[in-house]
Amino acid sequence: MADAKPYYAHPFDDSKLKEECGVFGVVGVKDAANFVALGLHALQHRGQEAGGIVAHCPDQGFNSARRFGYVRDNFTKASLMETLPGPVAIGHVRYSTAGSKGAVIRDVQPFFGEFSMGGAAVAHNGNLTNANALRKELIERGSIFQSSSDSECIIHLMARSLQRNIPERMEDALRRVEGAFSIVAMTRTKLMGVRDPHGVRPLVLGKIGDGWALSSETCALDIIGAEYVREVEPGEMVVITEKGVESHFPFRPQPSKFCIFEHVYFSRPDSIIGGQSVYETRRQIGVELARETPVEADLVCPVPDSGTPAAIGFSQESGIPYAMGIIRNQYMGRTFIEPTEQIRNMGVRLKLNVNRALIKGKRVILVDDSVVRGTTSRKIKDMILDAGAKEVHFRIASPPTAWPCFYGVDTPERGKLLAATMSEDEMRDHLGVDSLKFISLDGLYRAAGQKKGRKKSCPQYCDACFSGEYPVTPADMIEKGFEMKAAE
Amino acid sequence: MADAKPYYAHPFDDSKLKEECGVFGVVGVKDAANFVALGLHALQHRGQEAGGIVAHCPDQGFNSARRFGYVRDNFTKASLMETLPGPVAIGHVRYSTAGSKGAVIRDVQPFFGEFSMGGAAVAHNGNLTNANALRKELIERGSIFQSSSDSECIIHLMARSLQRNIPERMEDALRRVEGAFSIVAMTRTKLMGVRDPHGVRPLVLGKIGDGWALSSETCALDIIGAEYVREVEPGEMVVITEKGVESHFPFRPQPSKFCIFEHVYFSRPDSIIGGQSVYETRRQIGVELARETPVEADLVCPVPDSGTPAAIGFSQESGIPYAMGIIRNQYMGRTFIEPTEQIRNMGVRLKLNVNRALIKGKRVILVDDSVVRGTTSRKIKDMILDAGAKEVHFRIASPPTAWPCFYGVDTPERGKLLAATMSEDEMRDHLGVDSLKFISLDGLYRAAGQKKGRKKSCPQYCDACFSGEYPVTPADMIEKGFEMKAAE
Amino acid sequence: MADAKPYYAHPFDDSKLKEECGVFGVVGVKDAANFVALGLHALQHRGQEAGGIVAHCPDQGFNSARRFGYVRDNFTKASLMETLPGPVAIGHVRYSTAGSKGAVIRDVQPFFGEFSMGGAAVAHNGNLTNANALRKELIERGSIFQSSSDSECIIHLMARSLQRNIPERMEDALRRVEGAFSIVAMTRTKLMGVRDPHGVRPLVLGKIGDGWALSSETCALDIIGAEYVREVEPGEMVVITEKGVESHFPFRPQPSKFCIFEHVYFSRPDSIIGGQSVYETRRQIGVELARETPVEADLVCPVPDSGTPAAIGFSQESGIPYAMGIIRNQYMGRTFIEPTEQIRNMGVRLKLNVNRALIKGKRVILVDDSVVRGTTSRKIKDMILDAGAKEVHFRIASPPTAWPCFYGVDTPERGKLLAATMSEDEMRDHLGVDSLKFISLDGLYRAAGQKKGRKKSCPQYCDACFSGEYPVTPADMIEKGFEMKAAE
Amino acid sequence: MADAKPYYAHPFDDSKLKEECGVFGVVGVKDAANFVALGLHALQHRGQEAGGIVAHCPDQGFNSARRFGYVRDNFTKASLMETLPGPVAIGHVRYSTAGSKGAVIRDVQPFFGEFSMGGAAVAHNGNLTNANALRKELIERGSIFQSSSDSECIIHLMARSLQRNIPERMEDALRRVEGAFSIVAMTRTKLMGVRDPHGVRPLVLGKIGDGWALSSETCALDIIGAEYVREVEPGEMVVITEKGVESHFPFRPQPSKFCIFEHVYFSRPDSIIGGQSVYETRRQIGVELARETPVEADLVCPVPDSGTPAAIGFSQESGIPYAMGIIRNQYMGRTFIEPTEQIRNMGVRLKLNVNRALIKGKRVILVDDSVVRGTTSRKIKDMILDAGAKEVHFRIASPPTAWPCFYGVDTPERGKLLAATMSEDEMRDHLGVDSLKFISLDGLYRAAGQKKGRKKSCPQYCDACFSGEYPVTPADMIEKGFEMKAAE
Repeated sequence: MADAKPYYAHPFDDSKLKEECGVFGVVGVKDAANFVALGLHALQHRGQEAGGIVAHCPDQGFNSARRFGYVRDNFTKASLMETLPGPVAIGHVRYSTAGSKGAVIRDVQPFFGEFSMGGAAVAHNGNLTNANALRKELIERGSIFQSSSDSECIIHLMARSLQRNIPERMEDALRRVEGAFSIVAMTRTKLMGVRDPHGVRPLVLGKIGDGWALSSETCALDIIGAEYVREVEPGEMVVITEKGVESHFPFRPQPSKFCIFEHVYFSRPDSIIGGQSVYETRRQIGVELARETPVEADLVCPVPDSGTPAAIGFSQESGIPYAMGIIRNQYMGRTFIEPTEQIRNMGVRLKLNVNRALIKGKRVILVDDSVVRGTTSRKIKDMILDAGAKEVHFRIASPPTAWPCFYGVDTPERGKLLAATMSEDEMRDHLGVDSLKFISLDGLYRAAGQKKGRKKSCPQYCDACFSGEYPVTPADMIEKGFEMKAAE
Repeated sequence: MADAKPYYAHPFDDSKLKEECGVFGVVGVKDAANFVALGLHALQHRGQEAGGIVAHCPDQGFNSARRFGYVRDNFTKASLMETLPGPVAIGHVRYSTAGSKGAVIRDVQPFFGEFSMGGAAVAHNGNLTNANALRKELIERGSIFQSSSDSECIIHLMARSLQRNIPERMEDALRRVEGAFSIVAMTRTKLMGVRDPHGVRPLVLGKIGDGWALSSETCALDIIGAEYVREVEPGEMVVITEKGVESHFPFRPQPSKFCIFEHVYFSRPDSIIGGQSVYETRRQIGVELARETPVEADLVCPVPDSGTPAAIGFSQESGIPYAMGIIRNQYMGRTFIEPTEQIRNMGVRLKLNVNRALIKGKRVILVDDSVVRGTTSRKIKDMILDAGAKEVHFRIASPPTAWPCFYGVDTPERGKLLAATMSEDEMRDHLGVDSLKFISLDGLYRAAGQKKGRKKSCPQYCDACFSGEYPVTPADMIEKGFEMKAAE
Repeated sequence: MADAKPYYAHPFDDSKLKEECGVFGVVGVKDAANFVALGLHALQHRGQEAGGIVAHCPDQGFNSARRFGYVRDNFTKASLMETLPGPVAIGHVRYSTAGSKGAVIRDVQPFFGEFSMGGAAVAHNGNLTNANALRKELIERGSIFQSSSDSECIIHLMARSLQRNIPERMEDALRRVEGAFSIVAMTRTKLMGVRDPHGVRPLVLGKIGDGWALSSETCALDIIGAEYVREVEPGEMVVITEKGVESHFPFRPQPSKFCIFEHVYFSRPDSIIGGQSVYETRRQIGVELARETPVEADLVCPVPDSGTPAAIGFSQESGIPYAMGIIRNQYMGRTFIEPTEQIRNMGVRLKLNVNRALIKGKRVILVDDSVVRGTTSRKIKDMILDAGAKEVHFRIASPPTAWPCFYGVDTPERGKLLAATMSEDEMRDHLGVDSLKFISLDGLYRAAGQKKGRKKSCPQYCDACFSGEYPVTPADMIEKGFEMKAAE
Repeated sequence: MADAKPYYAHPFDDSKLKEECGVFGVVGVKDAANFVALGLHALQHRGQEAGGIVAHCPDQGFNSARRFGYVRDNFTKASLMETLPGPVAIGHVRYSTAGSKGAVIRDVQPFFGEFSMGGAAVAHNGNLTNANALRKELIERGSIFQSSSDSECIIHLMARSLQRNIPERMEDALRRVEGAFSIVAMTRTKLMGVRDPHGVRPLVLGKIGDGWALSSETCALDIIGAEYVREVEPGEMVVITEKGVESHFPFRPQPSKFCIFEHVYFSRPDSIIGGQSVYETRRQIGVELARETPVEADLVCPVPDSGTPAAIGFSQESGIPYAMGIIRNQYMGRTFIEPTEQIRNMGVRLKLNVNRALIKGKRVILVDDSVVRGTTSRKIKDMILDAGAKEVHFRIASPPTAWPCFYGVDTPERGKLLAATMSEDEMRDHLGVDSLKFISLDGLYRAAGQKKGRKKSCPQYCDACFSGEYPVTPADMIEKGFEMKAAE
């Protein structure tokens, strides 16, 4: 059931994968919600459609605010933030999920439940692969769902648990779910964080004054001046009060399968994953790419902004000068609301413009992070050729994206992934460029610090979108007809 | 847990009782939601804070819209109404409940639940007197409440029922609740209506073309051009499809106890209750009042607008000329949002002005519908005397309001009811008027068509607010410390 | 040139004449703008489309705010009112003028001009009958108009005057204009008020503490607690400072021609005109009407709300019981914005409902204030007959409206006035009622206190809308082709 | 006089100069306003506070819309754009002017005037240095100003001109004004463009289908797919109809003095000025800077985004690797509205974050475009040192900014310019960096294509902000007490 709402859409970014969420939580500081707002602002790249914050203070109990739009437009007004007092707060930013017919405010996390021993709020980054089955079961037993979100299952499972305290109820609930999840949650006094046994999605712990913070990425610790402490480990659940951090491991241990696409595209370049700068990994991808797929040219240009670090690396390794051949309009914002027909047809031009005087007569290498549907790549190629480039060579900082992600990333169905239906040469011809090369999976692993490349038997990362090897069986999707890759 | 929202308050109407809700539903017509919007507009006097509509159409399933503010400001825009297609729809208008710290959109009805055999939506006028106990029990079993509304219990009880269809689940649920309720509900294809066994709140059935309507009052049938068929009977549940109306009686029969205050104040004067014009009953109250409490004077003036029919009756019976001594500002609207200090202090003057040239030097009878806290009555008396009236006589079209209502009307706690702490003479002195008289309970019953007045043993109406005789024990309130009147 | 803006329209009031403006000003009190806001709220019936306030304080100079919508929705917020500090302020409420293709905020008064000796603001109720000619002349000399309002001519004429102070510049300007006007204006320290030589529109002076107020009507003095002092006289200009009121008479004396329709419909019933209660004049109209046009019937019902006082008088004189046969929806507000097709077609039903149980089988006299196009009258008649009335008799509290007003009232062009094209009997048949009678012009004058009725040679009022005798030649309209009544 | 409005401010960009305006106009295409909206979107960097569009179509005459906020948020909605039909349109984006107490919609251009031979609209980039004197004179003659903008003088001068057509009236008007201006203007059928005799501000001509466009920069021609034709020449006035472009030279010839800061910072890097890529000029500034002010270091990092091209050039010339040491939050937007105290204190951190893992232990060269007040530079230095950098060297892509601009750029008063009160060494110590070096004025000229550097006698550019040599005497400012540099 959808509450009526303004129409939002993003007609120009159709060929990028979208992270679905960022989470952030703070305990032990005055006006924790203010810190959460800043943290979410730093995580805005992980979800631009909507955001929510829940806070608790002893006088007023739980308060929440959930809004469509950017954090900076909603959660910065004193009038709103004053309604969210107290020393514990969690928050969430999100994209809309593929398939939902329209965004509704009820789907905006965190979710809240009042239990017999007090309330709890939960926010979640990832995707539960058995959510449909769980939902059906819960409805049959009389649970009433308020949203279409898979995450709401968690709070209902907690409500039905027979455990006597909330952290144990959460353990109970999480033992029923499958998939990828990084969770921040709160009770009246505690902040909690959990990562799934494979640790597919990131979650880090920071220290701020006498308090603590949990965040999807380190860049959000930086913005509030928190000190990075460590990553929450795969399968770990931390329960944090002002007194300190308790660590639990409620799940059966599993091999770690961190999402390699966080390195390629999702995470912010100033974040640190596994002790390593994301920016540096991306630059190194460019270095590997230059080694694997050299080409003679006059300029190396990034497709802004995500291709920039790899383009810098490519230039440094190849010796071909780095240049800003495509300029991004800083005022593009999220999208045009209710655009006129004419504007709808402008497409990528509203966002990007070619630096004509620079490009004219040149052989240009364009470095982009990935090719999903290929729509935008074709338009960019057209713009570059219109500006008089002599040759256009695409170099892609990830292997061909041939499989959908079921772990919290919004991917088109498999048939719409260019690499699922075409070979590299076919893609080159389809895009109409002089050459098109992707980094190899081994090269990507090397750039990410695995010197020997990818382990055959049990890869160090979740790379299902490239390899089709899914660490967790996507049960709901299989029931809907998705076919896994045949075992080799 | 309260979602942040603009602050709404009504500083100038503090001495009136407030009906909490109006309900309306339609089945079997194209774009049923449009009819519901019109019906709710006609019922706006029953609840001015917020409104909601749920509609179902086969293509899209259930859709809903819930908004703060007037129906005419929200549910009249084509852009919104187009999101509510389909041949079945129900709606609700409401006041905020006393005690809630602020209105939240989640508390706005109708409530919706997805059950294993399909969804249902429920809207409710009245109050469940055992809601706290039910809520506690449901939470302990793992239900998650999304609102602070007593009505949400109904949908959770339905979700947990083991019955195989929705009407039977609703019967199941309603057998667990106590109190006063008139409900409209809907499934994908059916419209349902229920009144509690005492029939405290009104609910009427109408016919519109090939379809059917349910409404709190007949005036809302008029606005959509529906023909009045009959009242839903106390304890009756009607299940309506395009094929017709099925009638069920799921409860043990009880004596009818329709709220007599609906006659005095709540219902619109152009509505018909029990075959009788509300306007005519009120005029007759004025006639009885003139007989019971005559006084010599120059003018009979209503306190606008609710005192008007009784003032007309008083004038006709007494022969003293009827006049508009107090003029109401038509543009007052609901209230001032964020008023300046100066405006806050203006109080009643923003709404009412004395017709000075008329009043000067006159002996004036003011006819008002009720006295609750007495605040406004004092201010009106001051205005009348400032304008040069020689004498001021208050005549009240209801008996002294000495007891709170627990059946869906927002009354102050008992200690704040003027009549709970003062005799009639003390009230007269407190208000500072030359005389103050109330109609007797017998007189009120006679005006309402009970020729012999009120039956001692089992009164024909619920008149608890005057008599302290509550037809349903207010269990939750007793647990909170409310003391019933000692049996005589 | 029109600034884009939301579409506002009033599809349901098409058969009423509309006053175009109300003006209010205060000097000599702290935060004068707050008093102006209250005054405008009390004058809202004179103009519901938009309102504006200009205030001056020594620190900040002139500030203004102009808004579409009701005073209560805009000028009551502390955040806005704080931007309008200072001891002098004037304000304006307005209807849109017929013929303007859409309302624009630039047309909302007061108008402001910066002159070499300091600024001035002007607000105006009425209409300048030579505005087109003046505008053309001013543009040719290099004045730039910011609005389509006739009133802007005044400020440009003032800007070009060679007088050395603002009151003298205003005298200069007003000697160039023709038509009907009641003006409030202000400089940095002075409040000014002017009425045209015929005194067509009202303007009254009040005292509030150490300060002074000017208002279109006395009801707006009441709301701020100001004492009524006197009317500004026809042709008088008052210049008010904290020290007192100076009186000037800059025009050649003319016979007084106050608008008689102010008595019939425009002014609020609680206002006092010429020492006489407007309510009492209207009641007296009903008395005269009952004498002039008696009819046998069961009930006298007003068409709410403007017909109420005359209906009371008719009932009192005729002895036929007064009753509320038609009930007005209090929540109708100004109009529906962007209504759905279905709602657009509901018309008058959204606003009025018949009291069916009362009307059924009765002979009903309906008292209305006027008949303009007749559209609403027909719909009301249909509603009454649908409800089962046996006979319907219309009694109209004004003579047939056969001529347009050019002095500040929004009337349809002559051809659309029912009385311009039909006799009384034809109108009766057109409306489909059992009888239709208007009060005579003599009867109206008697009700307004002229015992001998209307003077033939030089009527005491402007009654051009009934008689076609225009006290000021409508020059602009004659140039556009309007034909005056042939001299008899 | 200020209309009340929401508070907008930009607390975090206080150390950048701000261009005040961008202008764009189109004639000879269907729905010209849609093209203007796109052009303004591409020029948004020249003015982010507000935008306005005026369009003319034969049926409806002139229409306008003026809004606070981004073009993409206002001028992209079909509902608004439909109100601006017709084949001629002009538009404007603007910053607020220093000294204005708050932005008001009346100050938003284009300005419109109705003359005796038809209306005209005017939009202006630059600043009139004798506007105060002109305004005073015009007011004395009876002109009424609606804004506090210097640009409004032009339309009043046009209104008072005795010429019989609008282009000649504009010539008349412009011969009275002094200062820097690039104007686009329109009549009912013509598009006009003018540059002041020195050509301080840019204006280019483009061809789109059968129509023509005028734009502040070429990047806005690109977005609508228009072909770049040529620059409007200093002192030239073009009058464009569908038939073609007429060229007039109404002013006495003057040496060209194009603003050199357009090259350094204002213009977009993908624009072309004088046949040269702005990006390439900036890269070349980096090259010159590396030659003039070498330093040993590990990394060259831009201060994003304006320092990027110069940093690339510096790296290429010096051989020191280019790296993204500071990451910009893409979701920062214009600013926070009504921020909480806590957020207000965050300052630059909301916008920029250091790439900690990269910076730690490194000697870092930071390349920025300019130093104005130095506030942001200090904060950036602190962030870099907090992240563990070993050394910080600032290299600035412009000479020290020691003089305010009076030609349309919002600069602090002289006393607040760091370079006006400190030597380079004092600035270095004030900022607390290991070294601070600016490019020389000669180096800047060389990068801009003047091989021999700056001409002593008559410099090729306006470089008053660096040199204090003002090509047009700032008359108004001198009257307010500004002291010019003593002649050497």
